[in-house]
Amino acid sequence: MSYNLLKGKRGIIFGALDENSIAWKTAERVHEEGGTFVLTNAPIAMRMGSINQLAEKTNSQIIPADATKVEDLENLVDKAQEILGGKLDFVLHSIGMSVNVRKGNHYTDMNYDYTTKGWDVSAVSFHKTMQALYKKDAMNEWGSIVALTYMAAQRVFPDYNDMADNKAYLESIARSFGYFFGKDKKVRVNTISQSPTPTTAGQGVKGFDGFIAYADKMSPLGNATAIDCANYTISLFSDLTKRVTLQNLYNDGGFSNMGVSQQVMETFMKDME
Amino acid sequence: MSYNLLKGKRGIIFGALDENSIAWKTAERVHEEGGTFVLTNAPIAMRMGSINQLAEKTNSQIIPADATKVEDLENLVDKAQEILGGKLDFVLHSIGMSVNVRKGNHYTDMNYDYTTKGWDVSAVSFHKTMQALYKKDAMNEWGSIVALTYMAAQRVFPDYNDMADNKAYLESIARSFGYFFGKDKKVRVNTISQSPTPTTAGQGVKGFDGFIAYADKMSPLGNATAIDCANYTISLFSDLTKRVTLQNLYNDGGFSNMGVSQQVMETFMKDME
Amino acid sequence: MSYNLLKGKRGIIFGALDENSIAWKTAERVHEEGGTFVLTNAPIAMRMGSINQLAEKTNSQIIPADATKVEDLENLVDKAQEILGGKLDFVLHSIGMSVNVRKGNHYTDMNYDYTTKGWDVSAVSFHKTMQALYKKDAMNEWGSIVALTYMAAQRVFPDYNDMADNKAYLESIARSFGYFFGKDKKVRVNTISQSPTPTTAGQGVKGFDGFIAYADKMSPLGNATAIDCANYTISLFSDLTKRVTLQNLYNDGGFSNMGVSQQVMETFMKDME
Amino acid sequence: MSYNLLKGKRGIIFGALDENSIAWKTAERVHEEGGTFVLTNAPIAMRMGSINQLAEKTNSQIIPADATKVEDLENLVDKAQEILGGKLDFVLHSIGMSVNVRKGNHYTDMNYDYTTKGWDVSAVSFHKTMQALYKKDAMNEWGSIVALTYMAAQRVFPDYNDMADNKAYLESIARSFGYFFGKDKKVRVNTISQSPTPTTAGQGVKGFDGFIAYADKMSPLGNATAIDCANYTISLFSDLTKRVTLQNLYNDGGFSNMGVSQQVMETFMKDME
Repeated sequence: MSYNLLKGKRGIIFGALDENSIAWKTAERVHEEGGTFVLTNAPIAMRMGSINQLAEKTNSQIIPADATKVEDLENLVDKAQEILGGKLDFVLHSIGMSVNVRKGNHYTDMNYDYTTKGWDVSAVSFHKTMQALYKKDAMNEWGSIVALTYMAAQRVFPDYNDMADNKAYLESIARSFGYFFGKDKKVRVNTISQSPTPTTAGQGVKGFDGFIAYADKMSPLGNATAIDCANYTISLFSDLTKRVTLQNLYNDGGFSNMGVSQQVMETFMKDME
Repeated sequence: MSYNLLKGKRGIIFGALDENSIAWKTAERVHEEGGTFVLTNAPIAMRMGSINQLAEKTNSQIIPADATKVEDLENLVDKAQEILGGKLDFVLHSIGMSVNVRKGNHYTDMNYDYTTKGWDVSAVSFHKTMQALYKKDAMNEWGSIVALTYMAAQRVFPDYNDMADNKAYLESIARSFGYFFGKDKKVRVNTISQSPTPTTAGQGVKGFDGFIAYADKMSPLGNATAIDCANYTISLFSDLTKRVTLQNLYNDGGFSNMGVSQQVMETFMKDME
Repeated sequence: MSYNLLKGKRGIIFGALDENSIAWKTAERVHEEGGTFVLTNAPIAMRMGSINQLAEKTNSQIIPADATKVEDLENLVDKAQEILGGKLDFVLHSIGMSVNVRKGNHYTDMNYDYTTKGWDVSAVSFHKTMQALYKKDAMNEWGSIVALTYMAAQRVFPDYNDMADNKAYLESIARSFGYFFGKDKKVRVNTISQSPTPTTAGQGVKGFDGFIAYADKMSPLGNATAIDCANYTISLFSDLTKRVTLQNLYNDGGFSNMGVSQQVMETFMKDME
Repeated sequence: MSYNLLKGKRGIIFGALDENSIAWKTAERVHEEGGTFVLTNAPIAMRMGSINQLAEKTNSQIIPADATKVEDLENLVDKAQEILGGKLDFVLHSIGMSVNVRKGNHYTDMNYDYTTKGWDVSAVSFHKTMQALYKKDAMNEWGSIVALTYMAAQRVFPDYNDMADNKAYLESIARSFGYFFGKDKKVRVNTISQSPTPTTAGQGVKGFDGFIAYADKMSPLGNATAIDCANYTISLFSDLTKRVTLQNLYNDGGFSNMGVSQQVMETFMKDME
């Protein structure tokens, strides 16, 4: 589908690694809707992924940036405006990584250097990005900034480890910075809290496939896919949602407001017998 | 603006009274986006309003229905499908009225017959509407049902009286019925929690102008207007939000996540001196 | 245990039916903590229960009252003060009933007369009780009013039917009336959202035993029992919580903030294999 | 008042600086209720405060500990059990500090080294404390851990700066660690979200007096005081709340569920005229 919803809009998309990435699908959809953008990712992530294909397909340039480094982000913001020919209208932050998860450290046995690294990459990077955009006055009025998050910020998913705390911090940044970005620049800031999604990154989490099946059975409309998330992001970048800000928006087939579904209860009861 | 977002989609719009109504603006926007619909309102409300103009402008038919009467709603659902030529894709519920407010009864001195009447009109009507749609299998898969609500369902606004409780009940219906509508028919059900909006209906509430100014100063992006609400509703009727369901979505310039704004604190401090 | 936490405090306890009732356990604990009270229940409920034993054990009088009848509640408030010798310090509202559930009507096939009856008994009765207390100025400063509720007010439990909506309305009343009771009379109003509890009333709900097992496995501390609820209520009636008001407080072993527990995931996965 | 609610219970109290501290008042109240404890604070904070007086008054020992240092916390946990003669029943975490606030850096112009330091002191210290307690199996079953927080974790208070994000992270830790502490050790973990309180620490925040007045006028029961917080903490340490866990509990006179109060609206309107 294509509605020209983002015609004439410019932006930055963080975090497209490969075609399973939500950011990848979003880039494709933004392109279809007439938006132009630069792609960015950490130099190390770029070596592993296939972002060049995406750049070609969407007629975009790539600017590598370590999202924990202020100078990289400032360079990114400058270059993006130069390349795209003006101030920006949208930004997608889709970055997250826990070293404790990667190294197999249990939540009750954390290595705090890893905790700090994961927090910096997954959460503070969002503040650093917005601070660079804000200081350089790089966003147009009624622009829209979106970060991806997960419901572990509100509720316990034991295997999600310190990513839960990172996402809580990220969502708080969205509100705190969103206030100043709204009042001073008329820019929206929101987070989308997405269903568990079988991206390459998500596959690191223990028992992830089973959990995806569980979430799907719990959700009256089933899990939201990466494409669903891309579409929802389009709606938040568009002019249809100009006064929606400081919100954490669930794109999850209804999971977040479920106590229990009949399907999950049935599975549970079968086992109890 | 027009993006053809609702091309080929059919629906019902409740509650358009006059050109200040959110439902009125929504009907205009749905028409611009290529959707077709029938308009409905209570016979008594129709006499006061100017809904005929809207019908003409949007090339729609009007089917009067008392939203507290099951038989009226069943007739509406049948007729709407007949007129529009098929199952429905969207429904907007924008109905609310408190007899206690109208009669000037304080919340601590309610007349419970009035309470029951207001609850039936403002909240149960949403269940009755969905029950009629569900039983008659009148919604297409991936259809979308939206009801308008207000944040008094979560937080105290003293003059909002028993409408607060009615809105809490309405939002609960959205979740409860949304589960079955999602699971059984793949239909979304959500509520939009809108900024205070200077509609003709809203003007009945005491001190409403002052409150609108207060909400505007509290919200980093200012109050969402009726047009903003119409646009947000379009996004929820469109295919961009297919897996968003059971949600209460704030369209309020950020008010809902504010503790206090600098502007409100400044006004407050000036008075304290 | 006994700490004399309620020495000299007077109150009313609604809803003690038999020794499985939370209200029954609460009455016993209030008595142990030195509080005095009158018991009340609907005339019809009293015939089925064994409330006389409780009255004897706790040295209390019983005043029958239909909690949907304003005049019964006014009489109750007058008599309670007369019997106990002064204004009141605490009230427990533990009343709930859905005719649709009793009659086996599905949520998508409601009888709206039943809906209205259940709403009146389960939710409006709380407003009527507070309105009687407020108008007669029957509460001491720093008094405490508590109503029991369930998390279905926030999240979907499909078998809970229209009780979910009733509880949402009840919790809204707690906030709305709590504001005026706080500001005008310095009285707290809160709700306790309790784990599913094997009371005689709860046993009417379909699949209730399985659901209790599920909730227990989901909750890191297991389900809260009726005694746990009685103790929590004591803390809310005591002077330890004087500035806690308008809150909905979960007494549920942690269920409300769980996404999924390891135990539930393990059960689920076993079945998937 | 004294009820012997904590007779025989042992614990650790962090963060008593001077007699305005909530932790100080809590220590006094725990002592009155029959609990025994060690006091702890950062070496640097201890030089500025008068904690020795508190130790004398409550017959407690002081163990200095930098709450960002794992080895200090491990030593604290060992020593506390040695001194008190057994495993622990309660812990109060009352620590918070933002270097950005102290240095006057605006939220949109952060120094990220300061951000990291404030996050470590205010939030990660809570994880480090619990990790030390958990690994050393230092808590008795049905023990209770409480951390103090503020509503800026949910809603924007512009001057609260990065402490908002720190508190969001802290509350997430309470849930994440609370799950494992509950399941594995039967220990509760909760946070109390307290009214703005005129402590020595709070006085660093810009416009704090005006904000306290605002919060007081917004809250139907007025702001909760340090003593109110101490009493609420007692109730959470006691056996009355054994199944309450993973919760963020507002002790705020009702502020958290207010949209606007009549008093605040009146002040606002006076200024508008």
